[in-house]
Amino acid sequence: MNDGLPDWLAHRAAVLPQTEALCSLEGSLNYAELNERVLGLAGALQSAGIVAGERVAVLAGNSVELVEAIHAVPRLGAVLVLLNCRLTAPELAFQLADADVRLLLCHAPTAELAAAAAEMARIAPPVMLPLAAHEAGTTVESHTPGDVHSIIYTSGTTGRPKGAMLTFGNFWASACASAFNLGVHAGDRWLACMPLFHVGGLSIVLRSAIYGTAVVVQSGFDEAAVARALHDEHITHVSLVPSMLQRVLDTDDRPSPAALRVALIGGGPVPPPLLERALGRGFPVIQTYGLTEAASQVATLAPADAAAHLGSAGKPLLVTQLRIDAARGEPGEILVAGPTVTPGYFRNADATAAAIVGGWLHTGDIGRLDADGYLFVLDRRDDLVVSGGENVYPAEVEAAVLALPGMREAAVVGLPDATWGQLVAVAVVCDEPFDRPAFDAALRAKLAGYKRPRVVERVSELPHTASGKVQRRLVREQLAARVHASEGPGTP
Amino acid sequence: MNDGLPDWLAHRAAVLPQTEALCSLEGSLNYAELNERVLGLAGALQSAGIVAGERVAVLAGNSVELVEAIHAVPRLGAVLVLLNCRLTAPELAFQLADADVRLLLCHAPTAELAAAAAEMARIAPPVMLPLAAHEAGTTVESHTPGDVHSIIYTSGTTGRPKGAMLTFGNFWASACASAFNLGVHAGDRWLACMPLFHVGGLSIVLRSAIYGTAVVVQSGFDEAAVARALHDEHITHVSLVPSMLQRVLDTDDRPSPAALRVALIGGGPVPPPLLERALGRGFPVIQTYGLTEAASQVATLAPADAAAHLGSAGKPLLVTQLRIDAARGEPGEILVAGPTVTPGYFRNADATAAAIVGGWLHTGDIGRLDADGYLFVLDRRDDLVVSGGENVYPAEVEAAVLALPGMREAAVVGLPDATWGQLVAVAVVCDEPFDRPAFDAALRAKLAGYKRPRVVERVSELPHTASGKVQRRLVREQLAARVHASEGPGTP
Repeated sequence: MNDGLPDWLAHRAAVLPQTEALCSLEGSLNYAELNERVLGLAGALQSAGIVAGERVAVLAGNSVELVEAIHAVPRLGAVLVLLNCRLTAPELAFQLADADVRLLLCHAPTAELAAAAAEMARIAPPVMLPLAAHEAGTTVESHTPGDVHSIIYTSGTTGRPKGAMLTFGNFWASACASAFNLGVHAGDRWLACMPLFHVGGLSIVLRSAIYGTAVVVQSGFDEAAVARALHDEHITHVSLVPSMLQRVLDTDDRPSPAALRVALIGGGPVPPPLLERALGRGFPVIQTYGLTEAASQVATLAPADAAAHLGSAGKPLLVTQLRIDAARGEPGEILVAGPTVTPGYFRNADATAAAIVGGWLHTGDIGRLDADGYLFVLDRRDDLVVSGGENVYPAEVEAAVLALPGMREAAVVGLPDATWGQLVAVAVVCDEPFDRPAFDAALRAKLAGYKRPRVVERVSELPHTASGKVQRRLVREQLAARVHASEGPGTP
Repeated sequence: MNDGLPDWLAHRAAVLPQTEALCSLEGSLNYAELNERVLGLAGALQSAGIVAGERVAVLAGNSVELVEAIHAVPRLGAVLVLLNCRLTAPELAFQLADADVRLLLCHAPTAELAAAAAEMARIAPPVMLPLAAHEAGTTVESHTPGDVHSIIYTSGTTGRPKGAMLTFGNFWASACASAFNLGVHAGDRWLACMPLFHVGGLSIVLRSAIYGTAVVVQSGFDEAAVARALHDEHITHVSLVPSMLQRVLDTDDRPSPAALRVALIGGGPVPPPLLERALGRGFPVIQTYGLTEAASQVATLAPADAAAHLGSAGKPLLVTQLRIDAARGEPGEILVAGPTVTPGYFRNADATAAAIVGGWLHTGDIGRLDADGYLFVLDRRDDLVVSGGENVYPAEVEAAVLALPGMREAAVVGLPDATWGQLVAVAVVCDEPFDRPAFDAALRAKLAGYKRPRVVERVSELPHTASGKVQRRLVREQLAARVHASEGPGTP
């Protein structure tokens, strides 16, 4: 028996050579053309000495180059490490070293950052895309489902990022299950305006190749560009986080275009007024709950149920098992099992053992199943801050803050924000005097912009439990009250 | 990691309870209703002592009862053995014994045949469906991909039927790959007018449950009923063999209804005039090549390519690897590998080893790949006769003929027939006198109707090669000439 999965792009190039594969500002590529470019890049990587099993990292914003790299690295049997280009050089260097990366690819906008990160990680200088095409030697046309396709870093309660490994089988199962919920029509075009280096964007690229449909890539999120594409480019699917949806609705008051079949909203619960506003304009808003460790979607509201179950993330996808670690109907941690779940974190058996227990992935997120089995995600893990769709782990920010001179205690929380969902805020206990500009400058060198506190309050002490644990809920309430009193950020 | 596949029906009942699952003359059942009936049957089978791993056979024509059994038996972890109700009692008894069947299910129209077969196989008397519902104890809600879902008998060159085992993973891979070729839309309705006990029909039932769409079951093939359903019942997909397509076109001269997206034509090459006639009327005819051992489709023409590649069975499905055992562009045996391929024949290691060599299934069928990679199936295996979509293996018919008194040699071939594709014909060498009525009566007790020779010619000797092998091609030419001379069957 041979249970191998074909290389999806290779298969599509063979079966649907003339069908559109990728659309971007640079134009449109069909499957034959994309495949030829990918083979050229694979050949160039081969001639640079890359062999199967090695890690090749890519630091690039949304672009044709990134899509090509996403397909080319696995074509050699090498493992793709997708890096977030909003991170700082030290953050990237940690991931490059942790993933034992052999080669770092970048493109022009990330060249400087990539060079700094590679130097700090003491690996070879980065290679800039696009590379001159090179004839490929032997490529991998069939993949073992259990082989690792890519590694994506996520942080966590420890503040130390972990490389979640996602296999060919994970992405295949996820694409199949998503298809049997959302449907697949010939001519579908999925708009990717979220970063392709996150699982939500990467999975669009991979499932489009699996389906033989097109991905429309925008270089970043711009509400006017999204609105224009929705109306003018026959977009059938778009993935957004709640703050993006709001900005799209704000910028263009036309009703939803007829071709749009699915507006998939992930990255945190959608506020009910936003949901109602979007549905009122006819947008086919479908809430989803997903995470990196499950190759994106875990539960997604079926389109037919979207209106009747406002606020729910739906039911688990066809291949996914989901349970709540609590009594029936009560809130508890969301546990996930099935073929979309990561086999674990790269070379990190401890983190893997802590996250996956008896086959069940412990997401840390809190949810509830209603009597009909619909999932309501109540909150991301207690301390997680989600700002503009990016996950911010307080422990990581607190560690950076506490490393600054004079800092004695720090507690990071998220505050509600109309545009970004949440803003990062920190309460610090520190020696006199507190120099805010110096504080900000020091963090800028260490933390990605979306992680840096927008609200910084010096307090005389933090509220603690009897056992000495910081009471984040009280910190959050105190900071929210102070921001409100001063009409600070988040006020229109 | 947990790679289990959910029970598809159970999942659909949970996620899409109100969505139509099954439509028949008896009315429509949604997924919740079908699931409840299936659980009732599963409970009844449990109370009859059926446990996981045992074989439960079903002898039934297309009906709600058959669909329920198809879902209920795997729900207990038992293995479904699907029997062809056109077979004779001795033919069925062989399969019942070979599959070590614990229980035989039937329905009213097959009760007598089932009783005779069970008695000959010395198993318990058959149990008639529908059974009174019984509360199910523990059922299997998650299946291991490698577990056997069903066993379907196919014959072969030896004339001794073999039980091809098909796993949950086989059907899952097949459904996914078919979806990414033909698309899946909410509200799709697939008309099943071919027997559900063949893989072509069974796979409709299973993939509809996987997709959460509806299967419309007709009790048998009736061209007027098919035409009516196509026009009045929003059928989006229909599976037919060429002779059925022709009869549908003959009976109703309206153009193809708008809702019909796919008319999947399998069971042998479609004659080009028929294909052109159907396409001329707007029928979305899509040729496919498949076989039991690959869980149905192996290669299917993509809808967009159907008009431009008349006569081709298309390219291999997404998960399927296909090669021709010949020089590039030349005709040769079609070899198939991938996750849709059977792990082998039930308790028949020799047949398995002969059919699957190094992971490649040797289909025995002859095909050719053109320069663009499109498959043209030139002929089923040299000796196979396909009559009305049923496979007839000459060796099996010859063995039955030679067991009659006075028979010395026999050669079975297929002759072209406008209605059935092929007719079974036999040339016999036998002692004087030859009593045709007695010959027919004797075969009637031993062979299913579709296997029995319609053309019987007594000859003085059969043409042999130097090595003593019968030259079927010469036999075919001789018989065709005689039939033509006598204006026998096949002439309008």
